[in-house]
Amino acid sequence: MSSAEKTSLSDLQCLTPDQRWLKLWKVHWKRGDKTGDWTFASRKNPPMVATGKIEPDAVIVVPTWIERPDAPQSGEKKLVVTREFRIPLAGDYYGFPAGLIEKGQTPVQAAERELGEETGLKIVSVQKVSPPIFSSAGLTDESSVLVYCTVTGTPSKAGNEHSEDIDTLILGRRELEDLYHVRGRFEGARLSLKLWPVLDAWLAQ
Amino acid sequence: MSSAEKTSLSDLQCLTPDQRWLKLWKVHWKRGDKTGDWTFASRKNPPMVATGKIEPDAVIVVPTWIERPDAPQSGEKKLVVTREFRIPLAGDYYGFPAGLIEKGQTPVQAAERELGEETGLKIVSVQKVSPPIFSSAGLTDESSVLVYCTVTGTPSKAGNEHSEDIDTLILGRRELEDLYHVRGRFEGARLSLKLWPVLDAWLAQ
Repeated sequence: MSSAEKTSLSDLQCLTPDQRWLKLWKVHWKRGDKTGDWTFASRKNPPMVATGKIEPDAVIVVPTWIERPDAPQSGEKKLVVTREFRIPLAGDYYGFPAGLIEKGQTPVQAAERELGEETGLKIVSVQKVSPPIFSSAGLTDESSVLVYCTVTGTPSKAGNEHSEDIDTLILGRRELEDLYHVRGRFEGARLSLKLWPVLDAWLAQ
Repeated sequence: MSSAEKTSLSDLQCLTPDQRWLKLWKVHWKRGDKTGDWTFASRKNPPMVATGKIEPDAVIVVPTWIERPDAPQSGEKKLVVTREFRIPLAGDYYGFPAGLIEKGQTPVQAAERELGEETGLKIVSVQKVSPPIFSSAGLTDESSVLVYCTVTGTPSKAGNEHSEDIDTLILGRRELEDLYHVRGRFEGARLSLKLWPVLDAWLAQ
């Protein structure tokens, strides 16, 4: 028997009902003779604890850049990485184009929109799409879908939103190695948990 | 000029000072003529916004299981995956052994301790260690270090903590394929954002 069948949850309480984008919640848990309270953050209202439903909050685009969509094998394979000042990290963060999935959008539609808004690039083809996967299970019910695709075009900030100021970097192998090791021009960089394992696989090829 | 040099933060405010493990914070930001408030969750006190320091909160162990440490190349290569009911997800979560780094511990020391407590297994050798990488930059300043290692031993729950009830699975290629596609015995599973890209790279080998 898995522990899912043994744990019961009760007394879900929102600790910050006035916060619009992100709320802190507390819930009571009981498993056999063990019991306690758990505090977590959620963008969902009601959170997953109340619904049990797996619904992705966000999409993360893993974009391989190609110069010529008519000849995708020509030239060096490059990876698109975004650089953005992220407020919770108080510094420049390197990751992939990403954003919240809007109501009624599929993950691939959200990926096309976010890629366009954040980088000005366009999807040529989609290689694979992950299931919803969870950022940090003890801390939040946030989940994301990874969309691996090839993209093309010239970077532009024209579609950035009010709070955004996003630089688009199109990086080849040598630069990706420096980013992977957080060295050279990338010293002090804050790296995404999604980016690093992709770099690791990319550089092992 | 990167946006880090253009954004200023002020009026950091803790919205839930009475919460011990996880707090919600609000900070005011200003970049040129744009301005706003940002809400985020943090396990750190003070959070990264106040310190600017990159200090990993957690360690995540990526364990390849080998039967015989004296002959690591013999037998099928398997991956260790943990299954645990996670309260924020209201269900069974599949990921890697992980936990908070205690004061004074290196990430590798924390990996050895957490692996032992959660699975009863032992590290044979460490292959690579990531820099601190960030779970979800818009939502939290939480960062983790990935420790890729080979491990050996027989699973045990003897070291599980009060709130833990962790099953240790040692999975070969066919089972990892089912987990990757969330099918068969893994239907309805909540998958870790750290686990899926590792499965993706593993299955591409």
